[in-house]
Amino acid sequence: MDLLTETLENITPLYGEKVILAKKRLDSLAKPIGSLGGLEEIAWRMAGITGKIKNSIKKKNTIIMCADNGVVEEGVSSCPKNLTAIVTENFTKGLSGVCVLSAQEKADITVVDIGVDYNFNNHAIINKKIAHGTKNMKKGPAMTRNQAITAIETGIEIVDDLVKKGYDIFGTGEMGIGNTSTSAAVLNVLLDIDLQYVCGKGSGITDEMLENKKNVIRESIILNRPDKSDVIDVLSKVGGFDIAGLCGCFLGAAKNRVPIVIDGFIASVAAICAYRLNKNAREFMFPSHLSMEPGAAHIMKELNIKPFLHMEMRLGEGSGCPLAFNIIDASLAIMNNMKTFQELKMETDYLVDIR
Amino acid sequence: MDLLTETLENITPLYGEKVILAKKRLDSLAKPIGSLGGLEEIAWRMAGITGKIKNSIKKKNTIIMCADNGVVEEGVSSCPKNLTAIVTENFTKGLSGVCVLSAQEKADITVVDIGVDYNFNNHAIINKKIAHGTKNMKKGPAMTRNQAITAIETGIEIVDDLVKKGYDIFGTGEMGIGNTSTSAAVLNVLLDIDLQYVCGKGSGITDEMLENKKNVIRESIILNRPDKSDVIDVLSKVGGFDIAGLCGCFLGAAKNRVPIVIDGFIASVAAICAYRLNKNAREFMFPSHLSMEPGAAHIMKELNIKPFLHMEMRLGEGSGCPLAFNIIDASLAIMNNMKTFQELKMETDYLVDIR
Repeated sequence: MDLLTETLENITPLYGEKVILAKKRLDSLAKPIGSLGGLEEIAWRMAGITGKIKNSIKKKNTIIMCADNGVVEEGVSSCPKNLTAIVTENFTKGLSGVCVLSAQEKADITVVDIGVDYNFNNHAIINKKIAHGTKNMKKGPAMTRNQAITAIETGIEIVDDLVKKGYDIFGTGEMGIGNTSTSAAVLNVLLDIDLQYVCGKGSGITDEMLENKKNVIRESIILNRPDKSDVIDVLSKVGGFDIAGLCGCFLGAAKNRVPIVIDGFIASVAAICAYRLNKNAREFMFPSHLSMEPGAAHIMKELNIKPFLHMEMRLGEGSGCPLAFNIIDASLAIMNNMKTFQELKMETDYLVDIR
Repeated sequence: MDLLTETLENITPLYGEKVILAKKRLDSLAKPIGSLGGLEEIAWRMAGITGKIKNSIKKKNTIIMCADNGVVEEGVSSCPKNLTAIVTENFTKGLSGVCVLSAQEKADITVVDIGVDYNFNNHAIINKKIAHGTKNMKKGPAMTRNQAITAIETGIEIVDDLVKKGYDIFGTGEMGIGNTSTSAAVLNVLLDIDLQYVCGKGSGITDEMLENKKNVIRESIILNRPDKSDVIDVLSKVGGFDIAGLCGCFLGAAKNRVPIVIDGFIASVAAICAYRLNKNAREFMFPSHLSMEPGAAHIMKELNIKPFLHMEMRLGEGSGCPLAFNIIDASLAIMNNMKTFQELKMETDYLVDIR
């Protein structure tokens, strides 16, 4: 059986009985029931993921999928295409936003070349290059169906390897000039939402360029006729290697029963692809922030996930993940270190139950 | 000159020229301009506070003002009044939510008895008791004008002391059964917003009790006729020692040019009181989360502050502050550790400017 099929068959729901036990403990902690809101939800979902009521995170890793997009030749971005290679290289030098934020949180990063149009001579970049960038989707499919499957399986493999190395939480990052265009295209098809609501200015383009960007996406979809009921068809025709790779990361994390954090717009599109391939995958996803890209809010709604942070961020790279790691750590500390009313009663003779 | 007057006279705006320099550096960092959103705003505001472009936080402290409220005898809370003393005691044992979250963030807490109706025998609680709780505002003013001023000055003194001990960021927490009632009363008067929009269920009351809570607040305001243009009059007639004490903390932090984090609803009400006493005080405040109490959103709007976290939290105690400390640390790491395009050009020969 191929890796994708095997992975999809091995993604199962949260451990329901553990979720119930975790909620019971949270409700018994010495605080008004539910008063820690989202922090409590993280804790019971973690119990459903790992099967343990008390959890702790030991090793954190944000996987950054880097790839070029052929559609850039249509003028959809204000950035030159070779910036993909430059920033990919910079990740390995600790110079980018996600590097600085990860260092602060004692989290690692994994830089994957899944399709950059440049031959790196850098051992810190994992070479999983499928092609030197996708083809221009305005002229035909961005990639073959096999390439899309390979990209997804690459994400699964990367997670499988990192889990073996002891990583127990993942973040999802990306670098690829033009990838807000491919993300908007995939989202437009999958969720059937008009481009005006899902196509934004990316790293910063003019209103005129935004109109062109929408037209390019619209024409690419008309030409390629992706089948909205077939995620892999959509990814191959109007997606990118980075999105497909991250989709694989979400599936891999779910299969390995390890939590995975969604960063911004592109990672969110990858998350919705994974969710469409296996609904259970959603249970292993945690949000970070609500991206400024307009499509992000629609995806969060579809996934029924509420972003922790509202910080008007739009850098990508996985930059929201280290911030979310800290919030998840905080949630687990509540579960592990707060006392229940019962435990307090054994220590204090004057306690009353405040619920 | 008395401490409050002196403090109010010594709160000055952000250092404008430092803000400009900080924004210039942020715009020169190797990322699309503004792409780190709220993280960038924290960094430039910190420069305006301290006068240094690069800042780091060394010692964190959440100040928890604990006090009883006479209005509790009107049945506005589902919790027994003696819970104020019990939880105040528990703070010193590391047992509450804010303790666990602070420990996680290597932040300290300072527990202040500013008016609990209990005589503690516990050296870890700072005794600044003004009275054994306020009087029942439904029957007359909660406290005298002098008591309100003393409570505010207590907050200023606490911050002054902690600054001398090297703390360079503060959080604001509280414990006081009945304090969502006093907070809603103060907010209703100061912002002129109908009680239905600012009065919530606190730690959890029935719909019937909520109606009673609103009636009690309404009657207290009618009886005491607080002057909405005089914050101290409002605090003394329908406020609490905890709110007034935290108001002093905000003023003290601003005078000392140290950042201070707003926790939930009660701390937000204290923040708006400080802001009304001196508009510049706002510049030293950072949000944490958007409380589930309905009044919180109105205050954030009035202060023009966007909460970082949307986690549906409503515990109080200062529990949101440790989470915000981490976000502020992350922001400072961006300013301190990311490279500018110019700095990168010196290290790489192939870099292009992506702006």
